Amino acid sequence: MQIQILGTYTDLYQIAMGQALFRGGQHGKRAVFDYFFRKVPFAGGYVVFAGLETVLETLQDWRFTADEIEGLAAGGFDRDYLDYLRDLRFRGDIHAPPEGEIVFPTEPLLRVEGNVIEAQLVETLILNLLNYQSLVATKASRMRTVAGDAILSEFGLRRAQAQGGVVAARAAVIGGFDSTSNVYAAQMFGLRAEGTMAHAFIQWHGDELTAFRAFAAARPDNTVLLVDTYDTLKSGVPNAITVAREMRARGQALRAIRLDSGDLAFFAHRARALLDAAGFPEVKIAASNQLDEYVIRSLRHQGAPIDIFGVGTSLVTGAPDAALDGVYKLAVAGEEPRIKVSESLGKTTLPGRKQVHRFFNGDGHFAGIDGVVTVDEAAPTRLIHPFEPHKSLTCADFTSEPLLQPVMRQGRRVGGQRSVEDIKTFAASRLALLPPEYRRFENAHTYKVGISESLHGQREALRQRHSSARSPQ
Amino acid sequence: MQIQILGTYTDLYQIAMGQALFRGGQHGKRAVFDYFFRKVPFAGGYVVFAGLETVLETLQDWRFTADEIEGLAAGGFDRDYLDYLRDLRFRGDIHAPPEGEIVFPTEPLLRVEGNVIEAQLVETLILNLLNYQSLVATKASRMRTVAGDAILSEFGLRRAQAQGGVVAARAAVIGGFDSTSNVYAAQMFGLRAEGTMAHAFIQWHGDELTAFRAFAAARPDNTVLLVDTYDTLKSGVPNAITVAREMRARGQALRAIRLDSGDLAFFAHRARALLDAAGFPEVKIAASNQLDEYVIRSLRHQGAPIDIFGVGTSLVTGAPDAALDGVYKLAVAGEEPRIKVSESLGKTTLPGRKQVHRFFNGDGHFAGIDGVVTVDEAAPTRLIHPFEPHKSLTCADFTSEPLLQPVMRQGRRVGGQRSVEDIKTFAASRLALLPPEYRRFENAHTYKVGISESLHGQREALRQRHSSARSPQ
Repeated sequence: MQIQILGTYTDLYQIAMGQALFRGGQHGKRAVFDYFFRKVPFAGGYVVFAGLETVLETLQDWRFTADEIEGLAAGGFDRDYLDYLRDLRFRGDIHAPPEGEIVFPTEPLLRVEGNVIEAQLVETLILNLLNYQSLVATKASRMRTVAGDAILSEFGLRRAQAQGGVVAARAAVIGGFDSTSNVYAAQMFGLRAEGTMAHAFIQWHGDELTAFRAFAAARPDNTVLLVDTYDTLKSGVPNAITVAREMRARGQALRAIRLDSGDLAFFAHRARALLDAAGFPEVKIAASNQLDEYVIRSLRHQGAPIDIFGVGTSLVTGAPDAALDGVYKLAVAGEEPRIKVSESLGKTTLPGRKQVHRFFNGDGHFAGIDGVVTVDEAAPTRLIHPFEPHKSLTCADFTSEPLLQPVMRQGRRVGGQRSVEDIKTFAASRLALLPPEYRRFENAHTYKVGISESLHGQREALRQRHSSARSPQ
Repeated sequence: MQIQILGTYTDLYQIAMGQALFRGGQHGKRAVFDYFFRKVPFAGGYVVFAGLETVLETLQDWRFTADEIEGLAAGGFDRDYLDYLRDLRFRGDIHAPPEGEIVFPTEPLLRVEGNVIEAQLVETLILNLLNYQSLVATKASRMRTVAGDAILSEFGLRRAQAQGGVVAARAAVIGGFDSTSNVYAAQMFGLRAEGTMAHAFIQWHGDELTAFRAFAAARPDNTVLLVDTYDTLKSGVPNAITVAREMRARGQALRAIRLDSGDLAFFAHRARALLDAAGFPEVKIAASNQLDEYVIRSLRHQGAPIDIFGVGTSLVTGAPDAALDGVYKLAVAGEEPRIKVSESLGKTTLPGRKQVHRFFNGDGHFAGIDGVVTVDEAAPTRLIHPFEPHKSLTCADFTSEPLLQPVMRQGRRVGGQRSVEDIKTFAASRLALLPPEYRRFENAHTYKVGISESLHGQREALRQRHSSARSPQ
């Protein structure tokens, strides 16, 4: 089966609202929407912003095909509206941080401006691509944080949520993984593909040494032997050493053995000792089997000599959260700032076109403060808590830089496409600026995101107007 | 972006093992693999088997494209092996239960037989498609079980794991959902698309009544008004009633209102009372916002007059499990039965070509017992516990039917394609045969899956052979 993200890759209500806007003659008017999330996943302290390049690439080719239009016609939509959709292309403007930026709740991460229909129709695909890739990149970066200099390889396609496994590989690399087992994703995104061998290969040959020899003969430049099929220490590792000797005699080198069951710390220590004693200190040890950032951390704390971690399910499903709660909210209608009101300030949105400033300490690290302001303001010197307005802080002593930059103008990308490798490097450089208290797994600090007095004032004015207009008509 | 499930939609090790098998001249030999899972998700008592039609459709078109072959050539694979892959099509045989069957751990759900390379290469796509769709169909069926006669609609594309959201809609309907918001999936699979309206539409118009009127004018045949933007009971519902009156005067009818925040039980009761008092008992109430099977059950227990539930994140991510642990294991190599040994019997696989018998009570309900046998056996009269062989039970008093039927022969489907609606109907009919103790959420009964004495004997013989051959060489 084939999936292409086009016009109908959206919720029906987007198309239904579009018809109402079209009939109401609203489709020439501009709208501004913000993408942001409310809660950091994994009880962590940050999110790695991922998926932007996928969104931009998708929007450049976005359209309704003739088949899609015919399908909608059968669903009872107006012919003139469908004619409009048939010719519609995304011609909006988008501001965003670079993909790979370290980001926090409440602050706008995408400012999408376009005619109201195009900007509304693409909501679903934007949420679908950014929420998931940011979730996986964040999960990956947590593993990278505790994995030291070990190689991390994404092995999750078989447990991924269907085709989501393709961008999962991309997001994993952005978050700090080195490679993926997913050949399709590797070819699509230019990632390094990595693979070992499966138990079935050993079972097929019946005898482990025969299987090892057959594999080494076929993949001498990248031989990884799975040693836990029968008995890791009595059969698997000794047979691997036999093959390593044979390869060495042929001028080749066994790259690694893989452990896939049992007590990985125990087996890694014992296997390392056997390999070293046999004169193969350069043969690496790979481990897999239900790994996540906590298991990897534990294995490292135990000094387990594991050089390569293969991670599947927990990474590609973003377990245990499985979703980032990103939303897409209207901030400007025509030229008027708009909010979504709620009884709690925490769910009331921020009006107007906004910018996000990141503050830096004197030593160049993130200062633990981001400020959301209106686009016509300079960097603020004082910030108000977004939901508890009696709290404020000054940020006059810090330098700052604006996070949101133009990435698409009138539907065309600003600047060239960035490779996954470049994005990964950028993400790592930014994560290095985040103080450790925001990166730890237990009781991570909450990064402060404040709003300017001007933005607070605009939101309050709109809230007042809504509460006085609340009576029914 | 576009995703097509083809040859490289697999793990690199499958392609690497294929090269070793090809070099070893093994590629003409037959292999049999079993797909099965070990653990029921959601602490439940059953799984709805879903994704089979997607797998069969995918395998019919499966091949390596020229671009994929060139990408592999750059990865260092042998030219003659790549020539072989270029011409390779899936020509294997598959036995399976019908999609929608109610299934249990340990029992084989797919028996894939083909030449060893084709059967190995398709492992990843089979796991990727079956694991996820079965997870979502099972989650959906749990919601269907507690939702009474309410309409269930899948709203999850924005929180889905990227393109996984497309088959999620399909699986949700198989599990008992009525419709989806996902237009792409609806067009692809012939599902009913359903949509309401978003807060942005109200915000855009500034005033709720104007927004409601605009929407009702554009979608008079399917108007659902979102009533919680400002004040549900003082503004939203009264404005909806105003529009309902206007629609009635035009000979139209308001279909429903939607609640998306707050105490859904409270607001549903109060909104129902207001609608009824105004003379609109036929206007339905839809509810959404972080629903899952437990919330739906609670709302039903409270008598909340909700007619339509819109469910997103928990459904499409299969929260909190996020993955079914299905695996694909070699059972026959050439003509020899094979097992994967493990220190625990629970992870030792079952050898040979197998059939699964389902036993029925006198009243036609499932008897709580499935039996796994070798294909040449009749329905068994006594079954042995698969992991605790000192336990056994007799099933001589029950009727039985075999679950695994041919669904693909030499790469061609047996029988026609089944519609999602047919599969949904079948799943519901089978779930109706499952006694309630296996369907409850708390302490669900464990469905017994046993193995025949003959199968047990074959496994024991292979285990003995492996343990005597375990010494290193």
